[in-house]
Amino acid sequence: MHDAVLAGLLTDKYELTMLAAALRDGTAHRRTTFELFARRLPEGRRYGVVAGTGRLLEALPRFRFDDEACQLLAEFLDSDTLRYLRDFRFTGDIDGYAEGELYFPGSPVLSVRGSFAECVVIETLALSIFNHDSAIASAAARMVSAAGERPLMEMGSRRTHERAAVAAARAAYIAGFAATSNLEAQRRYGIPTEGTAAHAFTMLHTHKDGPDELRAFRAQVDVLGTDTTLLVDTYDVTTGVANAVAAGGTTLGAVRIDSGELGVLARQVREQLDQLGATRTRIVVSGDLDEFSIAALRADPVDSYGVGTSLVTGSGAPAAGMVYKLVEVDGMPVQKRSSHKESVGGHKEALRLSRPTGTITEEVVYPAGRPPDTTEPCRMLTIPLVRGGQVVSEVSVTGNGALAAARRLVASGLRSLPWEGLSLAHGDPAIPTTHIPA
Amino acid sequence: MHDAVLAGLLTDKYELTMLAAALRDGTAHRRTTFELFARRLPEGRRYGVVAGTGRLLEALPRFRFDDEACQLLAEFLDSDTLRYLRDFRFTGDIDGYAEGELYFPGSPVLSVRGSFAECVVIETLALSIFNHDSAIASAAARMVSAAGERPLMEMGSRRTHERAAVAAARAAYIAGFAATSNLEAQRRYGIPTEGTAAHAFTMLHTHKDGPDELRAFRAQVDVLGTDTTLLVDTYDVTTGVANAVAAGGTTLGAVRIDSGELGVLARQVREQLDQLGATRTRIVVSGDLDEFSIAALRADPVDSYGVGTSLVTGSGAPAAGMVYKLVEVDGMPVQKRSSHKESVGGHKEALRLSRPTGTITEEVVYPAGRPPDTTEPCRMLTIPLVRGGQVVSEVSVTGNGALAAARRLVASGLRSLPWEGLSLAHGDPAIPTTHIPA
Repeated sequence: MHDAVLAGLLTDKYELTMLAAALRDGTAHRRTTFELFARRLPEGRRYGVVAGTGRLLEALPRFRFDDEACQLLAEFLDSDTLRYLRDFRFTGDIDGYAEGELYFPGSPVLSVRGSFAECVVIETLALSIFNHDSAIASAAARMVSAAGERPLMEMGSRRTHERAAVAAARAAYIAGFAATSNLEAQRRYGIPTEGTAAHAFTMLHTHKDGPDELRAFRAQVDVLGTDTTLLVDTYDVTTGVANAVAAGGTTLGAVRIDSGELGVLARQVREQLDQLGATRTRIVVSGDLDEFSIAALRADPVDSYGVGTSLVTGSGAPAAGMVYKLVEVDGMPVQKRSSHKESVGGHKEALRLSRPTGTITEEVVYPAGRPPDTTEPCRMLTIPLVRGGQVVSEVSVTGNGALAAARRLVASGLRSLPWEGLSLAHGDPAIPTTHIPA
Repeated sequence: MHDAVLAGLLTDKYELTMLAAALRDGTAHRRTTFELFARRLPEGRRYGVVAGTGRLLEALPRFRFDDEACQLLAEFLDSDTLRYLRDFRFTGDIDGYAEGELYFPGSPVLSVRGSFAECVVIETLALSIFNHDSAIASAAARMVSAAGERPLMEMGSRRTHERAAVAAARAAYIAGFAATSNLEAQRRYGIPTEGTAAHAFTMLHTHKDGPDELRAFRAQVDVLGTDTTLLVDTYDVTTGVANAVAAGGTTLGAVRIDSGELGVLARQVREQLDQLGATRTRIVVSGDLDEFSIAALRADPVDSYGVGTSLVTGSGAPAAGMVYKLVEVDGMPVQKRSSHKESVGGHKEALRLSRPTGTITEEVVYPAGRPPDTTEPCRMLTIPLVRGGQVVSEVSVTGNGALAAARRLVASGLRSLPWEGLSLAHGDPAIPTTHIPA
């Protein structure tokens, strides 16, 4: 896999026609601030989880245009614009929320500062990454919180675009999922992978006198050992569990149930496993799970969950609704007045207030550099990410360290929510956002 | 952009552990047929549109494992399995529906035949591609049908993963969209691109005495000519339209409205444009459009639509619900009995019956090679796509030819639907699917 593919053309055409017009009339080099934020959360959601920061910072140096790209662009761009793009490097500054931070309506998740030219051309890529990754992480965090201490596995690769699947595995891991089925996510990001067998493997062991589930299970145990997970619902769950213990013994790792009334089946299977002496064999459930069905299984003897479709499609909110808006030009705040699409002008930063117990109470968005006086405990949310086009040294973008830090931030963010913020029921954002005017 | 990245690791781990177990017990080389199909359509949908066929056929030769991949795989696979994967090439046969064909519940969209080993390892990639692309094409076709003769532009790149965006543009184009905003989709697939300016360009033209929309519009017309589209709702639509005609003259190409009550605004803007003499200036609307709001604008003076979020997220159905199931082993039909997840065993083909008028009446799925006798007009749906690992010569996979053929197929498919099949309201599939048992 080549990670170094150029990202310049993953862009809406109008970013480059705007660039051409701005280069022609001299406005391209005005100093601007763009802000990436969500006007509102998906309907009924209490909080969002920022994800995508690391992917954007990694993609920035790859946001370039090679000869092939320029050849295409020459069909509609003038030579000045082409020259600008051929030499393009983002040289501006970016501040924003750390990856894994919670966000609320109006949270300035990113502030991108530089010339209009360099800030506008990266708009599409920045939005694609944040709208996708934050949608998945936000849905995943609700599942993690619904699952309590039980581990979750991401297995939705087949339900989304093959490259989106890799980013989805990453976002789910940040939100607290324990593992993914996606091998490229392991190679690319070091995320632990899991997975043993599908129904096809059992059905493959069909002979003239019919299916032979026991033989399939024995073949799997032969190669993967007794700690493997056997899928027991291809034909009949009770027979499947009996075959599983016959093949794997009482130290069998786990059985997986992928269909039917999972709560009822989990109770039956637990009883059967215990009777067979497989008291430590775990029960894994999967099959169209979402945060609501995960929560509904709380009282049942389930040891872990496999989640696919609802995770990689954001559980009803497949895009996070983030926008990227010009908020300042040469030091002047600017804002549009389109109905229902208002923006608040000016370069902003944010902090979050909490009670002494740690429970958060308010998101405060204020003009950059002018934090309000407060006697309440508070935490600065805006941190420097990029200076002069370079990722600042304290920000870890790649590898296990970066993802581990983001995971800790999500976990502490969820602990900081008021209890109604963790409710899965539709409601208002967990805390209000206050804008302090410039 | 490198298109030649390897696709082997875009795979669920369990495909390879199943392979390892099957190689060990000798079942890996059994002759199998896997079928890719949808058990049901997304809730209330009347039809689906097959998309992804061309992308899968292009990806097949890239489904390989290089040294770096094998190094990762060596962490959990034995040397026999690694040797198999290092030399992997798909050498089997694939039949299926042509890209752009309509599908219904149970339609055998793909039949993949070969050894268990070679068929099982491509499962994840095949499903990722078809579940994504068909979801987008199916939503897009409803929008195309709702828009009637008016052209639609895909502009949702920023609302989905940056690589999914390119495939979404392709799927929308197949379904009948006229253009995309995505430049990589133009480079990669030759899809026409459009797009002129965002609100940021207007707001960039802010000076000490306030915003200067007219100057922004003049700058855009200077570079893009009077046939451009000016975005008129940054501050006030009436002033915006006046400024637009002042900048572009009465031959201005179009104005775009991106917010507010689009129908009301379109009528007001049409009247204002006509009064100003810009009687041929078109009106483009955008802003959270879906098939329902497009249909609701039918009576209003709208010339074209820009569609983003709802298109790239499948308008409520972001994954097409396709599955990939083992249906035959060494000539024996196999099927699982998991509740609500039954499959029908055996290698199958399909044809579609219609009235003499061309209106379709029934999808008939029958054992491969044994089409039923019928006196009604019928069309074979299953065609050969791959033989011995090679795309068959009649199948055009890449370039404008392939996409144009798929577009024609969608258009004729929509014409063939009974009228209730084109209804946007929730309902049953437009035609029933009949399974002829083996």
